[in-house]
Amino acid sequence: MSVWILRLGHRLPRDERVSTHCGLVSRALGADGIIFSGQRDKGLIESVERIVDKWGGNFKVKYEKNWGKLVKNFKNKGYFVVYLTMYGINLPEAIGEIRGKSNLLVIIGSQKVPGDVYDFCDIQVAVGNQPHSEIAALAVFLDRYFQGNEINKKFGGKVRIVPKRKGKEIKTN
Amino acid sequence: MSVWILRLGHRLPRDERVSTHCGLVSRALGADGIIFSGQRDKGLIESVERIVDKWGGNFKVKYEKNWGKLVKNFKNKGYFVVYLTMYGINLPEAIGEIRGKSNLLVIIGSQKVPGDVYDFCDIQVAVGNQPHSEIAALAVFLDRYFQGNEINKKFGGKVRIVPKRKGKEIKTN
Repeated sequence: MSVWILRLGHRLPRDERVSTHCGLVSRALGADGIIFSGQRDKGLIESVERIVDKWGGNFKVKYEKNWGKLVKNFKNKGYFVVYLTMYGINLPEAIGEIRGKSNLLVIIGSQKVPGDVYDFCDIQVAVGNQPHSEIAALAVFLDRYFQGNEINKKFGGKVRIVPKRKGKEIKTN
Repeated sequence: MSVWILRLGHRLPRDERVSTHCGLVSRALGADGIIFSGQRDKGLIESVERIVDKWGGNFKVKYEKNWGKLVKNFKNKGYFVVYLTMYGINLPEAIGEIRGKSNLLVIIGSQKVPGDVYDFCDIQVAVGNQPHSEIAALAVFLDRYFQGNEINKKFGGKVRIVPKRKGKEIKTN
């Protein structure tokens, strides 16, 4: 089972924070890695890698300029390609089919997404057919795909949180 | 049943997009309204209101400088106050208790959150105890709280999407 995320259309500086959120959500909610496309941004990749280094896990962060070629390579390896967009089939109607696939490439866009992304995907999926956020769509999609199990994943990092009803506690492993 | 979101610590210009995402996610995933605190940002409120006007629903958008007083007012009206933070009780362990409450105020922070927020909440809740995104945490929290029903909500806006496996279709109502 392998789930990769492809984040399209990254722009500097305006997408720095949103793309960082995409990377951290992908990691925290069980994906194996994220590939950024659009403008090359060393700082973005390093900021996600710093979290992996401190908080653990084997999450991978990559950059690829030619995303079309990348999607084709994933398809050739048998990955099912999901494009998250508000124009797609609503998640409750789509998730059954997708849970049957064990290797996924999940594409998320920014505001400037190439018009032909849907030519490359197997299915468009919406998390509600309303405008909101690619970060939110990715999070709910992963949570539904992994059926909630991803939230209990152990990362074995240098630090870990001791969950508390009130206040903060971090322990060093 | 009433669910409001309180977004703390908004800063101009760096939080503009992330706060907008918070507003749109709150609306799309079933909340009744959002209150922004931190720096006053007329453009932020208008951009969320423009979506409500076009896409429908009764979602409210407000600003409140004195968030502490606001939280106390909600508490006095019987609202249960949830603070989403990675330091909290993990969602699977917390959601049962919270589903028993019909009126919620859900607080989400930005990077600059006052240290004493937890004094104001009834419970801290984490969506996984890993660093990621307040947008993602909010989305998964609402999806779990509403048990997925929010994704099928009808908004009755001026426009609506015709869900498609590939391509885009918007209809005017």
